Amino acid sequence: MTTTSPLLQRLGVALPIVQGPMTGSDTPQLAAAVSNAGGLGFLGCGMRAPAAMLEAAAAVRAATSRPFGMNLFVLPTPQPAAAEVDAALARLAPLYARFGLAAQAPARWCEDFAAQLDALVAARPAVASFTFGILSAAQVRRVKSEAGSLVIGVATTVAEALAWQDVGADAVVASGMEAGGHRGTFLAQSADDWEASQVGTMALVPACVDALAIPVIAAGGIADARGVAAALALGAQAAQLGTAFLACPESAISAAQRAAMARAQAGDTRITRVFSGRPARGIQNQAMRSLTPQADAIPAYPIQNALMGPVRRAAAQAGDADYIALWAGQGVGLVRARPAAELVRALLPQ
Amino acid sequence: MTTTSPLLQRLGVALPIVQGPMTGSDTPQLAAAVSNAGGLGFLGCGMRAPAAMLEAAAAVRAATSRPFGMNLFVLPTPQPAAAEVDAALARLAPLYARFGLAAQAPARWCEDFAAQLDALVAARPAVASFTFGILSAAQVRRVKSEAGSLVIGVATTVAEALAWQDVGADAVVASGMEAGGHRGTFLAQSADDWEASQVGTMALVPACVDALAIPVIAAGGIADARGVAAALALGAQAAQLGTAFLACPESAISAAQRAAMARAQAGDTRITRVFSGRPARGIQNQAMRSLTPQADAIPAYPIQNALMGPVRRAAAQAGDADYIALWAGQGVGLVRARPAAELVRALLPQ
Repeated sequence: MTTTSPLLQRLGVALPIVQGPMTGSDTPQLAAAVSNAGGLGFLGCGMRAPAAMLEAAAAVRAATSRPFGMNLFVLPTPQPAAAEVDAALARLAPLYARFGLAAQAPARWCEDFAAQLDALVAARPAVASFTFGILSAAQVRRVKSEAGSLVIGVATTVAEALAWQDVGADAVVASGMEAGGHRGTFLAQSADDWEASQVGTMALVPACVDALAIPVIAAGGIADARGVAAALALGAQAAQLGTAFLACPESAISAAQRAAMARAQAGDTRITRVFSGRPARGIQNQAMRSLTPQADAIPAYPIQNALMGPVRRAAAQAGDADYIALWAGQGVGLVRARPAAELVRALLPQ
Repeated sequence: MTTTSPLLQRLGVALPIVQGPMTGSDTPQLAAAVSNAGGLGFLGCGMRAPAAMLEAAAAVRAATSRPFGMNLFVLPTPQPAAAEVDAALARLAPLYARFGLAAQAPARWCEDFAAQLDALVAARPAVASFTFGILSAAQVRRVKSEAGSLVIGVATTVAEALAWQDVGADAVVASGMEAGGHRGTFLAQSADDWEASQVGTMALVPACVDALAIPVIAAGGIADARGVAAALALGAQAAQLGTAFLACPESAISAAQRAAMARAQAGDTRITRVFSGRPARGIQNQAMRSLTPQADAIPAYPIQNALMGPVRRAAAQAGDADYIALWAGQGVGLVRARPAAELVRALLPQ
């Protein structure tokens, strides 16, 4: 692990440890702590406004001189019909009522991706990673030349990994179905395609390594030193961990989510689209159970995500883990909560 | 890998390689070739009559003096109501008609487990493994004392692994959701429990290692030397591979199945209960697609399995891969067809 792979040299980091960008739950403190410990810290910027992205990047730089990454959701802003929004709001009425919230559409569905990409280029992170979609070759060239960033694409299948290689990505995160939070899947056209994209890390990583000329970073179900060693044995040049870093005191999750994570095992997690309209893995709770019968009807990301936002925030404030999206991967039972620097050290061969 | 773990010493094998027992597709030649190469060959005896079990064991012994294993399905013989069988036959009428078969219930639904267990004890294999259910502590004691076999239980969750430890198993196969063929799940009571039991190998193996005092054998998505190394890194004492051995010329699969495997990638496989009534992973084909809309209605294993038997056999004879159960794991794309002895050598560190 002390021999530095070509990818680590290009990333400018000592250790093959990447902190998953946990949009909404990350903090500049967490990213800086990981980078200071020799890994690659990440800001999950999918839901950050451009100004907040620059602010967060500055906060990381104030705490570390080491490289770090920024991640974006590649996502068009939707223009849903009023009837679709009304139907979705009606479906959520019991949840809004539960927390005394007015059922109404939000001021915006998501951040504007073009503006976020401009902000990322202005922030010039050492690494820029992208999920939910794919950049054009021209966009990849721009991020490389104007921001000087290494470009990493998230893939859940070999086809998606090849697509990222084709547009000029420097590396791919191969994200197995064990991973927590949103699936990065972007080539699926049908429910069956989404199912086909649920490949375990053990099979996905070597298949991507064989198919690609660029380095592969393994993600999904990796939560301790054994998982990191296994990822490298599979041919990955680094391992990306989300859930393990989510449990660090430096993350932004609520006390209720922290407590739920501490109790959870792999079998307590499910892949669901009820919280956001996009398949994502989290710990099963009452909201997941009660919304699942309607899962096929709810609107796609980011519409459902925006409509559920007030419920999730109110639940977090109320300390009610039954209505938070408790994103976590199947490695959750292996996680021990500890400061990020201590975690990074514990991920090395013991 | 040349250091012999306590499990390998007890198994009496040199290499941490276990051939998955591929019921219906295994042969004594395959098991003997694996054992002669230093791994642990297996006979999948779930669908063998007691006399055939003894015959197969004798055939292995004629070809090797090394240890081998025998696997059984722990399964009561069902007594379905006539109406249930008629409804299932009616559902399959188009498939029977396609192959010119008479739609009728079979003479028996499955082998009698008590008689199979007696045959296993008489065959005295070095290793006896069990799936689909769990033995009683008394049955485990009997297999150990009367047959002198090491007892291995198949588990898909930590709870199932602990249950096997509690009844006295010597080791557990932790079978991740990537694995081909039937899931070994036996504690699931609901569809949601079955979903909870779909844990990736990367997360399942270390969780079982942490929870158990007995050795863990990793299975699921392991198809080459990288997978074996990863399994050992996760804390397993050996790796069990099914799909990779299924592609060996020594296996009993049809030419049509062999050709389908050679073309398949991870994303071509699905977990389905349409072929047998029990969730199992195989390559998607026309039969899977056409029966899936009825998946919730079809009878449980072994009823559907027995009713589909004539269709699957006729399709295999006709070389029609669209109506065979093409069991394969998510590692299928990593597999290269080659003789078992050559495969075993290729699984060691290169």
